[in-house]
Amino acid sequence: MTAAQLSIAFFLQMAIIVGISRVVGGIAHRYFGQPQVVGEMIAGVILGPTLFGALMPEAQAWLFPSESRKLLYVGAQLGVGLYMFLVGLGFDRNAFRANAGPAAWVSIAGMLVPFGCAMLLAPYLMQVPGLFQAHVSQMQATFFLGAAIAITAFPMLARIIHERGISGSRLGTLSLSAGAIDDVSAWVVIAIVLATLGEGPMVAIKAVGGGLGFAAFMLILAPRLLVPLERAVQKAGGLTDGLFALALFLFLLSAWAMDAAGIHAVFGGFLLGTAMPRGQLVTELKARLEPFTVVFLLPMFFTFSGLNTQLLLVNNWDLALVALVVLVVSILAKGGACYAAARFSGQDHATAMGIGALMNARGLMELIIINIGLQRGIIGPALFAMLVVMAIITTLMASPVFEAVYGKAARARGEL
Amino acid sequence: MTAAQLSIAFFLQMAIIVGISRVVGGIAHRYFGQPQVVGEMIAGVILGPTLFGALMPEAQAWLFPSESRKLLYVGAQLGVGLYMFLVGLGFDRNAFRANAGPAAWVSIAGMLVPFGCAMLLAPYLMQVPGLFQAHVSQMQATFFLGAAIAITAFPMLARIIHERGISGSRLGTLSLSAGAIDDVSAWVVIAIVLATLGEGPMVAIKAVGGGLGFAAFMLILAPRLLVPLERAVQKAGGLTDGLFALALFLFLLSAWAMDAAGIHAVFGGFLLGTAMPRGQLVTELKARLEPFTVVFLLPMFFTFSGLNTQLLLVNNWDLALVALVVLVVSILAKGGACYAAARFSGQDHATAMGIGALMNARGLMELIIINIGLQRGIIGPALFAMLVVMAIITTLMASPVFEAVYGKAARARGEL
Repeated sequence: MTAAQLSIAFFLQMAIIVGISRVVGGIAHRYFGQPQVVGEMIAGVILGPTLFGALMPEAQAWLFPSESRKLLYVGAQLGVGLYMFLVGLGFDRNAFRANAGPAAWVSIAGMLVPFGCAMLLAPYLMQVPGLFQAHVSQMQATFFLGAAIAITAFPMLARIIHERGISGSRLGTLSLSAGAIDDVSAWVVIAIVLATLGEGPMVAIKAVGGGLGFAAFMLILAPRLLVPLERAVQKAGGLTDGLFALALFLFLLSAWAMDAAGIHAVFGGFLLGTAMPRGQLVTELKARLEPFTVVFLLPMFFTFSGLNTQLLLVNNWDLALVALVVLVVSILAKGGACYAAARFSGQDHATAMGIGALMNARGLMELIIINIGLQRGIIGPALFAMLVVMAIITTLMASPVFEAVYGKAARARGEL
Repeated sequence: MTAAQLSIAFFLQMAIIVGISRVVGGIAHRYFGQPQVVGEMIAGVILGPTLFGALMPEAQAWLFPSESRKLLYVGAQLGVGLYMFLVGLGFDRNAFRANAGPAAWVSIAGMLVPFGCAMLLAPYLMQVPGLFQAHVSQMQATFFLGAAIAITAFPMLARIIHERGISGSRLGTLSLSAGAIDDVSAWVVIAIVLATLGEGPMVAIKAVGGGLGFAAFMLILAPRLLVPLERAVQKAGGLTDGLFALALFLFLLSAWAMDAAGIHAVFGGFLLGTAMPRGQLVTELKARLEPFTVVFLLPMFFTFSGLNTQLLLVNNWDLALVALVVLVVSILAKGGACYAAARFSGQDHATAMGIGALMNARGLMELIIINIGLQRGIIGPALFAMLVVMAIITTLMASPVFEAVYGKAARARGEL
């Protein structure tokens, strides 16, 4: 394909991707009370080999020629990188520190039980051919699976809690803090797994050393070094194009550094986001980047992910059983454990159930993790497909379960 | 290159592109009183084979591997497509109609003289090997060259006039209207040339028919069909993500339609932009798209253009003479003709000189046209390089000449 042909294909692809994402997302939102993002995850799967590719293989090959998938991949990386940058910008370091105590039981349970279950589940999954790649050690498989079970759709959770106006409630602060702690921990584990994946010890040392050095820099020095940026925004009376370019430059450099070190661009974006000085800078950065990221770039990610999702690989009862086990273990190990920990720390049944339902939703975060796992050769396409299903179902569950166990009662009390 | 390697290269490339563009653009603006865009045009050339590639060929090949150039191309197309969409959104159809009369002489001179000069110049340039491609007819060469001389940096002109607060002055309305008329005419000519380029009459018929049909639809029907969009924005109290997605969807579809018909994505973007209902929709679309387009995507275009700019092809006195002739003819045929026409229609010397200086700046518009010409095989790399120089010099000239012939006197009168 010439560059010009690629460009023509790109405009049509993007029209269809942006269009379908919105339509399916809108249906999910309007008719099923689901968050938009669930619909977009499903839209990606629809465009993939399971539906569009199975029904109209020629049309799919024409619309998504193999060469254009690299383009989709790069756009998707930019999208998730910017998305994690935005998540980092919305991350409240102070609330994270202040609430770490009260949320301790829920967050510890939300980490330990998933990793414990992963220790039991990984050897079983490794015996099934094609779920994990051959060169992956049991330790790596366990850590990856544990993180995949433990992750929470933290940004979605924050939005749900904010939208329902329960940010100040017991359920709100507990879920938010525990979700943030668990997500950060899960990402650290993923970073360690990625760092140990390289060929030869030098690659691992570069990744671990680079990752630790970068994280230390972003957590300790960067917040101070970046303070003048907020001052410059206030002095200029807003985010000028020049300051916007500087912020983008720092984002691109951070994403590149973590990518080149062998970890992943999303870490660079997220850590830089947490280090940015709070104030007008963050507000205007979000206003400028969020719409384009959410409406244009993230659907590229969902589509790229969907094009790799071959649900038809789960084509016999044995594999279907494996998929069911993965799903049930994920729900019990995360949602169940968080419920139990919340009860243990004194919450009533309804509140604890609400916390469990929210913590159990994995959304986009899960897709990001498992796409990294697939790209970097940790998991195979069959386990990838099972985890996509797990991600979609646990996210789909969240709203109705939350509503049934907590929402109705809370509305009756006038709390919602 | 694997998709992952491409993605790593992309983050570093973009960091350097966004960084260099801003630095060179900022220097041009702060120290030389030039518009930012001139610096960015030069930044692209700096990153190309003339400077970075000549001094550090290995570093350049490492930073811009050939495979990544396709990616840069697609990003650049998206950038200029969105940019022309934004230009279309800022296009005032009513003022265009109302001022067509008074601006008639200037705009007619600004078209006829460039095309007249192109008729004389094209046969001469076609004799020099490698300037035009072998299969290009004299008619096509003449039309293309005429449009390349006649084009005006209309959006830049609008910004300069707006920034200096002379929108209501004689010079302001005349330049703006004449610039808009000439640009629209030049683009129509380019569209015709592109439409006749195809292999075989059917391709030409598809392009001409498709282009005319699309233009008629966008000029006549679309403005009415799109009215509910503005109403929906007002009803929702702002541009929701859903409506933003719909606008992007329409843009992508228009860009694709004009690209696939054999014309170019920029026409789709521009025409859709002019058809969008004016009001809150346009204001918010601009606020959401302009920063990212200007700071992130357009520098991709300048870099892609710069990577193709081989100034060292002009490596002997004969070619240098040709380049000089192209430059001088361009300045006289556009700036000179507009000055003369303004004088003829009763303006004083200073005002006419100011109009000539502004109309002579070609900026980004010229780069878009000649990049299309290079990609579609109308001109060769040597003529491309000469026209890049012409674009940069005529844009560089505008501010100081305007200042010298009009600005000082106007400030003395208290008009500026």
